[in-house]
Amino acid sequence: MNKEQLINIIQRKKSFLCVGLDTDLNKIPPHLLSCDDPIFEFNKAIIDATLPYTIAYKPNLAFYETLGWKGLLSLDKTMDYLRKKSQEVFVIADAKRGDIGNTSTQYALSFFNREQQNLNFDAVTVAPYMGEDSVKPFLGFEDKWVILLALTSNKGANDFQLLSSNGKRLFEHVLEISQTWADDHKMMYVVGATQAQMLTDIRKIVPNHFLLIPGVGAQGGNLDDVVKYGFNKDCGLIINSSRGIIYADKTENFAEAAASEAQKIQKQMATYL
Amino acid sequence: MNKEQLINIIQRKKSFLCVGLDTDLNKIPPHLLSCDDPIFEFNKAIIDATLPYTIAYKPNLAFYETLGWKGLLSLDKTMDYLRKKSQEVFVIADAKRGDIGNTSTQYALSFFNREQQNLNFDAVTVAPYMGEDSVKPFLGFEDKWVILLALTSNKGANDFQLLSSNGKRLFEHVLEISQTWADDHKMMYVVGATQAQMLTDIRKIVPNHFLLIPGVGAQGGNLDDVVKYGFNKDCGLIINSSRGIIYADKTENFAEAAASEAQKIQKQMATYL
Repeated sequence: MNKEQLINIIQRKKSFLCVGLDTDLNKIPPHLLSCDDPIFEFNKAIIDATLPYTIAYKPNLAFYETLGWKGLLSLDKTMDYLRKKSQEVFVIADAKRGDIGNTSTQYALSFFNREQQNLNFDAVTVAPYMGEDSVKPFLGFEDKWVILLALTSNKGANDFQLLSSNGKRLFEHVLEISQTWADDHKMMYVVGATQAQMLTDIRKIVPNHFLLIPGVGAQGGNLDDVVKYGFNKDCGLIINSSRGIIYADKTENFAEAAASEAQKIQKQMATYL
Repeated sequence: MNKEQLINIIQRKKSFLCVGLDTDLNKIPPHLLSCDDPIFEFNKAIIDATLPYTIAYKPNLAFYETLGWKGLLSLDKTMDYLRKKSQEVFVIADAKRGDIGNTSTQYALSFFNREQQNLNFDAVTVAPYMGEDSVKPFLGFEDKWVILLALTSNKGANDFQLLSSNGKRLFEHVLEISQTWADDHKMMYVVGATQAQMLTDIRKIVPNHFLLIPGVGAQGGNLDDVVKYGFNKDCGLIINSSRGIIYADKTENFAEAAASEAQKIQKQMATYL
């Protein structure tokens, strides 16, 4: 999906919500555990219920890998279902990958190239620590995106991301240097919602980029603040909520509850658009 | 595996060689492609041939994930085979993971906890960008290790890892701060062989830790230099070679050729031990 298509979907659906599919066998409604593939059944129901209110989904790879190859198979089925259900949805592999060039190429193929049994995401989250040649292999696919970690939502963000070098913090170096690798039609950045006030500084460096903002809800971030400091002329934000939506209810009504939570956020988002 | 067991195996085998299982369908001998599971058949033959000369194996997750769930199944079978073949081998998941706490916990379970269909590695490589709470979940497993990226072997290492803050480069901050998270019985560091002379600086900060050194061979690193600057009283080095060993030959003699390359390196290593 290209940037214009993404902006169109945001305007049409009056939403910039992403639903995080952090699907955990220990947290999904117990009645699903007797299905052949509980993870897929859960995702399917969540997708059906929330699709009217969301423009993106973000499966978190860890929750699939923790079930080994069977988890990857559940993810594969989820992606197939999602792609058949709608062409108008942006799908992010939240994987935080990044390795030497020939290895990043393999990761890129696994997320972007629907051959063998691999997947067909629109974007993948990438860690910047290993620099340019670890990120570039993800940039060679048409209408596919890198979402680079800049300033994350967790406490550990303070350990290294805020270290100052030549008057700039590490995450600011990441934002600046990475702009020489690709522009705002191929690259987005992860900025945690818990860091909303930092968005003012970030928008000075990347005024036109989309930002993926996790951390609204369970992690404590506030939607009003994120919009106040992060919104740009194209909207420029994809706000992720995982646990607050998908685990809103653990009974047989879980999908309706998820829809209701997603709709609540979408209605708030519509007021900003 | 704990540190004493690792040191014992190094002394007994007179080797500190790790064989990287970057198994790529485009590079393995063509006659294997007609097997049911070429990746597993290749790994099995490489393991059988090289086990006398190596103390560790390092499957690179990207090369399995690029084949989707079927790739993970090949890895699963490889791990089973390896664990049955020998208890005296250190197995590293080269995965470069790292995410917020609850997600890192899922990754840790996928690599360290042999339930469901997940795996049973001794160690996993972790990226430090997200800080303490992204690394800690990997440290809660007995006799399991984190191998944290410090100074990598690729050109992109220069982009951020060498940025200086308060008189120390980023990789030095990583080495120092991470020592407050775990000691040299739970943590190792990745240092690229292409950065051998930097090992002098690194050994000042982490004199007792094991270092995982990729980049000998195809990436241009030199074994003599690495030993000269990096060796410590326990050996303290695990040297990885991937392509130089496993793709030494593309004919039906590939396993013998791999054994011969591994033995060549092991003989050189024996002179240092």
